Amino acid sequence: MRVLGIDCGSERTGYGIVDSDGVDHRLVAAGVIRTSPKWAFEQRLLEIAGGLRRLIGEHTPECAAVEGVFYSANVKTALKLAHVRGVALLAVAEAGIGLAEYSPLEVKTSVVGYGRAEKGQVQMMIRSLLRLAEPIESLDACDALAVAICHATRESTSRKLR
Amino acid sequence: MRVLGIDCGSERTGYGIVDSDGVDHRLVAAGVIRTSPKWAFEQRLLEIAGGLRRLIGEHTPECAAVEGVFYSANVKTALKLAHVRGVALLAVAEAGIGLAEYSPLEVKTSVVGYGRAEKGQVQMMIRSLLRLAEPIESLDACDALAVAICHATRESTSRKLR
Repeated sequence: MRVLGIDCGSERTGYGIVDSDGVDHRLVAAGVIRTSPKWAFEQRLLEIAGGLRRLIGEHTPECAAVEGVFYSANVKTALKLAHVRGVALLAVAEAGIGLAEYSPLEVKTSVVGYGRAEKGQVQMMIRSLLRLAEPIESLDACDALAVAICHATRESTSRKLR
Repeated sequence: MRVLGIDCGSERTGYGIVDSDGVDHRLVAAGVIRTSPKWAFEQRLLEIAGGLRRLIGEHTPECAAVEGVFYSANVKTALKLAHVRGVALLAVAEAGIGLAEYSPLEVKTSVVGYGRAEKGQVQMMIRSLLRLAEPIESLDACDALAVAICHATRESTSRKLR
């Protein structure tokens, strides 16, 4: 299955697309949609929506996976993120593909085997799981790949159980 | 000028469109985009985005006005609302029209003359300002009309000052 993972952020929205049978994972694309703090907030949302739509159009993933709502200590940051998340969920719904949500704990447990793993450990495991010569530099792209791989693994297991 | 006011909500998103010179206001359209709690959240976002796009396409407002981010005591509600708000801001940005944001205090002060006005008072003032035979029944539509009228009044004053 082909999964698009999205790591929402108003400045940097990471994305990662993998082909996976639940055990073997292959990197299709990974990167970051960047916006400038100088832009009006709605222009940033426009850029993120456009970027996600282009990715979905180009790579035609079967489904998308995102991290669940994040209850940050910083309410302002959490509310900003929720705006971006709304736009990301809309882009997925518009494409008519499935959406799965996982907690950060579930993603890290699935990918690193440890729910409180550091970002660097996630990066290392992504490199290993995708058998890449070099690590993916952007931590936002790594987080997006992690949620995509988490979903591929979980979904493959539940398909086998069905 | 023609202004679209939006009152975001995941179950009911109120909208109100007015033609105004800043003093005289005329009702163009008002209503509510409803979604069902039974739908997946992203389907609700899709319905809200579609509804707003249709309204903008049909009535071609020059600009849109929304209330600023609402720091609710209930974080879960505030985060849900922020997703909807993200989608509304996106619909406005996609249409390439201007966006203005006002606090609930500014809206009520502008429309009722009192920042802590009750919803019923807003409803009564909307009826009076728009010279309607009957009050607008939906309080969500009234709130949307209030933010639209607030913007028309403010914008007209600042145009005169320029």
